[in-house]
Amino acid sequence: MKIGAQAHRTSAISSSNEATILVRGRDLCAELIGQISFTDHVWLLITGELPTTAQRRVLDAALVAIAEHGLVPSVQASRMTLAAAPEAFQGAVAAGLLGCGSVILGASEEAGHLLQEVVTRAEATSMATAAADIVHEYKAARRHMPGYGHPLHKGYDPRARRLLEVAKEAGTHGRYAQAAEAIDVVLPQISGKPLAMNVSAAIPAILLDAGYPLLALRGAPLLARTASLIAHLLEERTKPIGFVLSHAGASAIDYDGPVPDGFVARDQ
Amino acid sequence: MKIGAQAHRTSAISSSNEATILVRGRDLCAELIGQISFTDHVWLLITGELPTTAQRRVLDAALVAIAEHGLVPSVQASRMTLAAAPEAFQGAVAAGLLGCGSVILGASEEAGHLLQEVVTRAEATSMATAAADIVHEYKAARRHMPGYGHPLHKGYDPRARRLLEVAKEAGTHGRYAQAAEAIDVVLPQISGKPLAMNVSAAIPAILLDAGYPLLALRGAPLLARTASLIAHLLEERTKPIGFVLSHAGASAIDYDGPVPDGFVARDQ
Amino acid sequence: MKIGAQAHRTSAISSSNEATILVRGRDLCAELIGQISFTDHVWLLITGELPTTAQRRVLDAALVAIAEHGLVPSVQASRMTLAAAPEAFQGAVAAGLLGCGSVILGASEEAGHLLQEVVTRAEATSMATAAADIVHEYKAARRHMPGYGHPLHKGYDPRARRLLEVAKEAGTHGRYAQAAEAIDVVLPQISGKPLAMNVSAAIPAILLDAGYPLLALRGAPLLARTASLIAHLLEERTKPIGFVLSHAGASAIDYDGPVPDGFVARDQ
Amino acid sequence: MKIGAQAHRTSAISSSNEATILVRGRDLCAELIGQISFTDHVWLLITGELPTTAQRRVLDAALVAIAEHGLVPSVQASRMTLAAAPEAFQGAVAAGLLGCGSVILGASEEAGHLLQEVVTRAEATSMATAAADIVHEYKAARRHMPGYGHPLHKGYDPRARRLLEVAKEAGTHGRYAQAAEAIDVVLPQISGKPLAMNVSAAIPAILLDAGYPLLALRGAPLLARTASLIAHLLEERTKPIGFVLSHAGASAIDYDGPVPDGFVARDQ
Repeated sequence: MKIGAQAHRTSAISSSNEATILVRGRDLCAELIGQISFTDHVWLLITGELPTTAQRRVLDAALVAIAEHGLVPSVQASRMTLAAAPEAFQGAVAAGLLGCGSVILGASEEAGHLLQEVVTRAEATSMATAAADIVHEYKAARRHMPGYGHPLHKGYDPRARRLLEVAKEAGTHGRYAQAAEAIDVVLPQISGKPLAMNVSAAIPAILLDAGYPLLALRGAPLLARTASLIAHLLEERTKPIGFVLSHAGASAIDYDGPVPDGFVARDQ
Repeated sequence: MKIGAQAHRTSAISSSNEATILVRGRDLCAELIGQISFTDHVWLLITGELPTTAQRRVLDAALVAIAEHGLVPSVQASRMTLAAAPEAFQGAVAAGLLGCGSVILGASEEAGHLLQEVVTRAEATSMATAAADIVHEYKAARRHMPGYGHPLHKGYDPRARRLLEVAKEAGTHGRYAQAAEAIDVVLPQISGKPLAMNVSAAIPAILLDAGYPLLALRGAPLLARTASLIAHLLEERTKPIGFVLSHAGASAIDYDGPVPDGFVARDQ
Repeated sequence: MKIGAQAHRTSAISSSNEATILVRGRDLCAELIGQISFTDHVWLLITGELPTTAQRRVLDAALVAIAEHGLVPSVQASRMTLAAAPEAFQGAVAAGLLGCGSVILGASEEAGHLLQEVVTRAEATSMATAAADIVHEYKAARRHMPGYGHPLHKGYDPRARRLLEVAKEAGTHGRYAQAAEAIDVVLPQISGKPLAMNVSAAIPAILLDAGYPLLALRGAPLLARTASLIAHLLEERTKPIGFVLSHAGASAIDYDGPVPDGFVARDQ
Repeated sequence: MKIGAQAHRTSAISSSNEATILVRGRDLCAELIGQISFTDHVWLLITGELPTTAQRRVLDAALVAIAEHGLVPSVQASRMTLAAAPEAFQGAVAAGLLGCGSVILGASEEAGHLLQEVVTRAEATSMATAAADIVHEYKAARRHMPGYGHPLHKGYDPRARRLLEVAKEAGTHGRYAQAAEAIDVVLPQISGKPLAMNVSAAIPAILLDAGYPLLALRGAPLLARTASLIAHLLEERTKPIGFVLSHAGASAIDYDGPVPDGFVARDQ
């Protein structure tokens, strides 16, 4: 059955014949393999153009910053999945990426929309006023500010600070970074909580300033985390901890449902 | 309950405190962000060491080569998934990666094990003999040779040829590449079919020669394909074709089950 | 690191010792296996109580209704995934379920929230008024009404009609079904479009009337679709069409990106 | 591009027109919804025929037996995924199912192939001899016997015992169950380990005896587990423990990589 309007029947990403593969209009083998970095290729795939030196540097920094932060939930889900299903490395990576959501790791996109709103409003007022207005609106609506606050890095997230420095060094620091910094200033005052900018606001700030598309922001943490999951799954294949993780998790939870007479749960 | 032996209770990838995040023993913010490329970081995460220039160049080439090849099954699955569930970009990426399996895209690992076997046997004989022996064994067992033959690139896969050139340029071309080439010579003769080395044999050949670990080979196409999926999902968000793909697919298939009297299927 | 409030450290679903497994407080082997149907067990798992005859009948009807509707996107994604990665049946099921989203198949939950809103408002006015008010609000906000309209079943969705009949036969037809019917009456008038109730509104209507929890509504199509995917994947293993589907999809799409001089795309 | 032989271009599962949906040749709304149970529908979808009373009873028992067993790895992966990505219930279910692999939960298919081999060989000898021969072969090859041994239920798995009873009660207990029992007798003697039949051998035994297809065996635990995951995800939405699980897991693992001078890891 036909679902949706189906107005588009084209794609501009790749074409090929028996001798040649085109990617974004360029001959993959003659122009790209061995001549550009993977980061260049990521930018080319997503935007259709090769990056400038500054754009490449900013994307490299963002991907390096978000790739790895220890045994976070997505990593644990991935390692447990490989332990249970070692035949499907790709399934374990997929399980890990499914935890790259709006709460953990994937908030870059939500934060990007927030920064876009501040930047747009700031055209008619100052950045500081636009930021304060939005923080007040979020507070009134009891909405969480995506990209601010971190359970471990309470004073500030060292990755966020470093990413904004890199943007300055690269010469791309602009309106989106200013918006992120403006929120960073007013949020603790208005919310009354020590919520500092974290990596998930810094990434959209510097990527949007560099010309990376808003609607592909979720891709940045997903790509970076894929690299981290490969490292963890290699470790899982050689020094497995997947079942240690699940045993520890189960041991932390008590059963509080009904129990028949005489039933005694096993020692965990 | 305790599953498995649980001998290991450690991980060597990351640690952190409130001010510092370590990745493979290095200070993420002071030493890595803004100073190394994402490809460097991938190598560091997976091997524990930063790559040499040659290693970086080989990994870049492998990732660039395998990222994109048009509307292959994994891309279509991903785009259809986003069309049906636009709220979960990560779910669409995961659906695409789940098709990175032993038949399509994921054969790099299987081919890596094949090359390892040839290299090991060649210690006691010539590479040509080791390759011929294994091709005969696969033929006798009616097993498919992973990394050889391609539905479009029948004479040769231009990516494979280019990747081996890059390895020579980088100075890493070694025993694994020789093994891949040795199979490439004898396979058409022994099998009687025009099966040429494809990208899924060239990638393990050049990565293993460069020192990339065998048990992480499946990660290379997964990481590269993640970049491609992000580009396709951005296009899907702006110029959607997901339902065009599913309509075309359904139209290509006839129903051949039982039919009650008088039932007429809809025009597709 | 500690993420979130972590107020809860209990689960009420299952406990066990070496001799006994409890599910929702009942002895799995002594009380459940061989004595209750799978549908009973689903209800027990989700609600903590065994269903009445009427509840079982309604859940059976909902699951039967939504399980299968041909080569829809989720089924195609699943079959292509198995073709590419035959080693991971579970990966192919997962890929299919990932397309059970807010647009296709998963709209039962969104429709359930809509019905809840109508029922709540109808406490202070008539159901007809509450329904009309909400339809007007959705129209003003240019929001799609979840659970209404279908690309094939334009006049009415025969599954929706039948499910509401079953609820009447079972004696559970109540406020939620009335809300769904009230929208069904006013929506075409207010929207000016022939949007009839589809299965994704009928399912929450009859399940909520029967006492099934709102926050588990997304589970009903997921569970039903899993059964359908198993059937399709068995067929894929014995009469594969996964690559026919992807070939037809790719053939329907033209490349409209830049092309170097002299490049001619292959015949699809 | 055309991948694979593409000999088949048909599907026998479903067809439809605007007024009628056929499932396996039957009118979904007129013949199935409200008239058959979900278990009947599962059997119909998978085999093309409605089950007998005995077949339904056996499938019900198998699905009830394997649905739930506490906070196993797949459940934890699923709950952590929902905690991190609450916008995608389907993603959390998918993450859980990805852990239904060859080691945990998904061994029913591997065990089914094992039983098939015993039954086939027993045509030329006794079941006991066929079973003993295969156990010896597995031991010589240092292969794990799928479906035997359990980390908690060491003496015997009460679910396995009960499932075989149900098959006897239903009158379907046959060659596959005998094969499973024959292995159960000889395995401890030959292996020298107290490995008793677990639920993953009992399920294929009773399903194959009832006429369920071997190549759909992996589907049984996947379908059953989907029901369990829905219950756990409903609980996660109302009494979340996902981050408690991940915190406990991370706390159980020590970092053993290199550390710069002066670095002190945070208190977990």
